[in-house]
Parts: sequence; structure tokens; C-alpha cells
Amino acid sequence: MIIGKVSGAMHSTINHTFYDERKTLVVDKLNPDGSLTGDYLIAIDTVGAGAGETVLVIDEGNSARQIVKEDNAPIRSIIIGIIDEVYVKI
Amino acid sequence: MIIGKVSGAMHSTINHTFYDERKTLVVDKLNPDGSLTGDYLIAIDTVGAGAGETVLVIDEGNSARQIVKEDNAPIRSIIIGIIDEVYVKI
Amino acid sequence: MIIGKVSGAMHSTINHTFYDERKTLVVDKLNPDGSLTGDYLIAIDTVGAGAGETVLVIDEGNSARQIVKEDNAPIRSIIIGIIDEVYVKI
Amino acid sequence: MIIGKVSGAMHSTINHTFYDERKTLVVDKLNPDGSLTGDYLIAIDTVGAGAGETVLVIDEGNSARQIVKEDNAPIRSIIIGIIDEVYVKI
Amino acid sequence: MIIGKVSGAMHSTINHTFYDERKTLVVDKLNPDGSLTGDYLIAIDTVGAGAGETVLVIDEGNSARQIVKEDNAPIRSIIIGIIDEVYVKI
Repeated sequence: MIIGKVSGAMHSTINHTFYDERKTLVVDKLNPDGSLTGDYLIAIDTVGAGAGETVLVIDEGNSARQIVKEDNAPIRSIIIGIIDEVYVKI
Repeated sequence: MIIGKVSGAMHSTINHTFYDERKTLVVDKLNPDGSLTGDYLIAIDTVGAGAGETVLVIDEGNSARQIVKEDNAPIRSIIIGIIDEVYVKI
Repeated sequence: MIIGKVSGAMHSTINHTFYDERKTLVVDKLNPDGSLTGDYLIAIDTVGAGAGETVLVIDEGNSARQIVKEDNAPIRSIIIGIIDEVYVKI
Repeated sequence: MIIGKVSGAMHSTINHTFYDERKTLVVDKLNPDGSLTGDYLIAIDTVGAGAGETVLVIDEGNSARQIVKEDNAPIRSIIIGIIDEVYVKI
Repeated sequence: MIIGKVSGAMHSTINHTFYDERKTLVVDKLNPDGSLTGDYLIAIDTVGAGAGETVLVIDEGNSARQIVKEDNAPIRSIIIGIIDEVYVKI
């Protein structure tokens, strides 16, 4: 799993029906110190994450399908938590 | 999932039969701001994407097989939407 | 599998219920000589790893779900051992 | 899926029995413009690809196992087509 | 699949029981010309590979579990052959 920051959202009209009503967010990947890695993911939100929030993201299809409870969903990346704090060098 | 831009197509005569009638596109990976990452994928199109269009791509075999409805298809990367807008820093 | 070093932990209040009671650690990826690769993972701990310890990490959903014994767990990265020694150029 | 170029082959005597009679090729990954990415894969050939040919490669275990029709095969990377042409900027 | 060179081994006392009696090796990833890529894997050995040997490695959980014949094994990377020769530009 990785740490990310919600930096935006995307919108599509023509898409697989699974995405019709989904909140589809742009998530920038972060290093543990909060700096940007330069990489990103498009992820489905299931925890009510908003812009600027630091989130826990999992990038694995089977995990994502379990969460949305659709065995046939074409999905791989999903937000599974809003991170309150990252303690580095505990 | 990632954002991509359709930049071309490929053609093969000798291939696995699954690819016989498929529209097989070259998709350049984009950053959320629309710049090129320098990486790309060869992806099957299922939404009618054309050259120059910005698309949502998923790179996971199980997702791709669900969409083409063939449990045995040798496929991993598939276009699942045409992106109208990406809002960064919402 | 890869070698990592536990460098911190993260805390979330709003998350998928699977993560409610989990010890969720920041693991920096190491080269075999012990230097940092610059990459990291957020991993669940199942062996009692503490800060500063060198650990064996697996980044695969099916492996992780077997260990936590929950078929539906949204998890991909898990610590599976505490490494005593790495012998390079044996 | 990705574009590759067959640049060599490898030979092993001691190996998993699945590889006993297999044509195991070195495939350099290509950019869509035909330049080398600097990365490569070792892939099984199933379409009769020869040295110097441009090929379509899939790097996913379930796809590869379907093609060789062995549910238990330890395989991930497989050549699924010989590419005649890549049209960039169509 | 990729080419690697066995450069070491690791030892752990506290680990998942699957690793109790396993030969767990450090494998440096090689380019086809034999140079180091700078990356590595920790892999289980099943073919009797020793230090300095060039090996064929597969990094996929389902393949690895088939080879060790344990459906629940937490494993992803496994050595499947000892490479005698790599012919580049055949």
C-alpha cells in the first residue's frame, strides 16, 4: 500500500458502466515525509476523501473488487483510508 | 488506473486468435497535468477511443478479461473510458 | 520479496474496517548492502517488527490475505519475517 | 501489453520441467517509435518469433498460462503476436 | 521472467513458518549482456542454485505457489532455472 494526496478529480461521459456514478480521484503518490514522488494514480474513493487529504491507497484488483463488492468490476486502485498522521523514525 | 492519450495503433497478422479482430492502440501515459510521462501501453479499446483522445486505462488482467467477457483472453491493458476533463488542485 | 527497514508507522481514523486494529508500518526498501533504495511501502506487520528492524516484505495480495486469514481483506503488502543477517557475495 | 524486439535466446539444463522444451527468448522492450527502453523480459514464444522481429508481449501469469494451456505452469511473460507495423500519431 | 545472479543469502529466525527451512537467496537482476541492473529480489531457490550462478527468476505469486506445491504459501519470487548461456543478437 502507499501514501497519497488527493490532488484532483476526473470526469468522463463515455466509460464502462461501473464508472457511471463513481467518484474518481487523482491521487499523487507521497513519500513518507510528505514530499511528492512524482507519480500518481487514478483511484476510486470509498471513504469520503476530499481534495488535499492524505490517503492510504491500495493498487490491487482483488482488494479493490472486494471493497466495492462487485466481482466483475474493472478496478485496480482504491482509497481505503484517510491518514491522520505518519510517524517517521519512531 | 492511469490517464493516457491515444497516439497510434499497431497491426499484426500472426498473433493469438483473441487479437484477430481487435482494435489495438498505442496509449502514451500522461501526468494529471496532461504532460507525457515517457511511458506507454498497448491497450485494447472498448469505448470507441480515437487518436488524440485522453483515456482512462486499467492495466490488470482480471479487469480486462471481465470487460471483453472472455475468461481465457490473454489481455492485461484496456481502455475503460474517454476522459472529458481532469481537475487538478480542486 | 524484498528487504526493508521499519522507519515509522501511520495512523488513520477513517478507514476500511480491516485496518481498524492493524499495526500499519512505513517500510523503507533496502538494497542488499543495507543502503536505502529511496522507495517505500506501507505494510501490515504480523511478526512483531519494531522501528529500525530489517524485515522481509512481500508485496502480493494473495500472499497477504493468506497470512491474515481473511479472504476479503484489502491488503497487498505484509511483513513476513525479521531478518537477522544478509550475506552478500557468499 | 508492450512492444518488444527479439534480441536473443537463453539456454538452461537445470530448470523447472515446464521449461524443458520451451523456446525462451530475450525480448528488449521498445518505445512506440522503435527505440529501446533499456528494459527487457525473458519470454516464452508461441507464435514462431525469430531474432530481430518486433513482437507483442504480455507480462501476466494468468494470460500466459491460458495460452500454454497448463494451469500450473510457472510462467508470466509470453509473446502473443508478431507486429507488422506500429502507426504513431495516426 | 528475468535473468539474475545469486549474490548472497539471508537468514531470519522470526518469520512466517513457510520460511522456516527455506533457502532464501539474494538475486541481483542482470541485463541480457550480464551487467547489473541495480535492482534485486529475494527469491526462494528450488533448483539448487549457488552463489555466483546465473538464474532464471519468476516474480509472480501463483507461479511460485505452484512450484512449492503449497496453495497458501506467502511467496512471490522463485528461481526456476540455472542459465547456461544467454545468446544476445542471435
